[in-house]
Amino acid sequence: MRRLILLRHGQSEWNLENRFTGWTDVELSEHGREEAREAGKKLLAAGIRPECCFTSYLRRAIHTLQIALEVMEQDWVPVIKDWHLNERHYGALQGLNKTDTANKFGTEQVHEWRRGFDEKPPMLTRDDPRWPGNDPRYKNLTDDEIPLSESLHDTIARVRCSWEELIVPALHQYETVLIAAHGNSLRALVMMLGHLSPEEITQVEIPTGSPLVLELDDRIAVRSRHYL
Amino acid sequence: MRRLILLRHGQSEWNLENRFTGWTDVELSEHGREEAREAGKKLLAAGIRPECCFTSYLRRAIHTLQIALEVMEQDWVPVIKDWHLNERHYGALQGLNKTDTANKFGTEQVHEWRRGFDEKPPMLTRDDPRWPGNDPRYKNLTDDEIPLSESLHDTIARVRCSWEELIVPALHQYETVLIAAHGNSLRALVMMLGHLSPEEITQVEIPTGSPLVLELDDRIAVRSRHYL
Repeated sequence: MRRLILLRHGQSEWNLENRFTGWTDVELSEHGREEAREAGKKLLAAGIRPECCFTSYLRRAIHTLQIALEVMEQDWVPVIKDWHLNERHYGALQGLNKTDTANKFGTEQVHEWRRGFDEKPPMLTRDDPRWPGNDPRYKNLTDDEIPLSESLHDTIARVRCSWEELIVPALHQYETVLIAAHGNSLRALVMMLGHLSPEEITQVEIPTGSPLVLELDDRIAVRSRHYL
Repeated sequence: MRRLILLRHGQSEWNLENRFTGWTDVELSEHGREEAREAGKKLLAAGIRPECCFTSYLRRAIHTLQIALEVMEQDWVPVIKDWHLNERHYGALQGLNKTDTANKFGTEQVHEWRRGFDEKPPMLTRDDPRWPGNDPRYKNLTDDEIPLSESLHDTIARVRCSWEELIVPALHQYETVLIAAHGNSLRALVMMLGHLSPEEITQVEIPTGSPLVLELDDRIAVRSRHYL
């Protein structure tokens, strides 16, 4: 038996401002930091000690993990940061206020962008300051890898790279692995592990700051799951 | 040209209490956190952006690095934690007050332990609660690797493992590498890079929180060095 723990980061400063975030590297709010501390306390109370952790290239997930590990006094545990675990890229919506966007494009369209499986928000152009190719952290990505906008489907496809190349090998090496990431990158993992359909996964909502514990067998199939 | 930056962690809670620390996993004091923030600001002002970082298994070094990276908005940079970069193990002195120890063993003897090259402080026994083999983070170390006490010579020998196996390969891959560690593990690196004698290295004192920038040529030989 081995365990995989999925932890969704808590409130960020842009959640507070009701803006589309995606790959924008926004900081946790004080409430978000508190959610991370609570997650650490829950893991500690459950006697769960991660031996290897993964997170994205985005601060709100990295800090969630660092805060939880600090509470657990497990700062020394290896942490692998991987851009494939980033939040879904929200294209040209990134930075916009959600209410303004609904007023401009209609509630229905925004709902489609947010909840459809194959819907992509409007694309960024390469001359947009928000284009990830301008950011040194993504300088080793190929042009094909740098998103201009992503559907949930696209996000799942790239999370699969991280899953197959990094996380599965870690699950063979360690008994307890933790991933601190984002609503949609964690949804991708839940879909893969649960063999969910596109219709099913768009209904799944992972709560923030509540560690989801998946017990896995030796073939990395889910035997049980519960939230702490 | 490539750059290696050595950063010694700042004041810890036991520096404040004047106790021998070694491998004890003591937290930074508020002043130590401020030193880490200042180090981040100095790197930022000098336009130095580490692309890969190393640190020890001890919180005071890990947090120094995390705080500096946060100030630089470089949280996403890969960080490798390695126990070989830990502070020198102070054996049975760990946790003792330095003044009490000087009163008990004599100032001369304590000076020898602290400044000699081959002097080991009194050894821990394996039934001591301070024996590192009791700590899960060291569970994969062999009996030979778990120190009962270390001379500076011993510390240098194990830092060399990290240098040869991890840091030199990183210096071939990245232009700018940063190591956040401890007085004696950094001294080990300075000795190796500067080809210093045992007499010379015992005179070297690396200040806390001041990034030491070493410019290296393609054969990883030091071309110049300066503190920020």
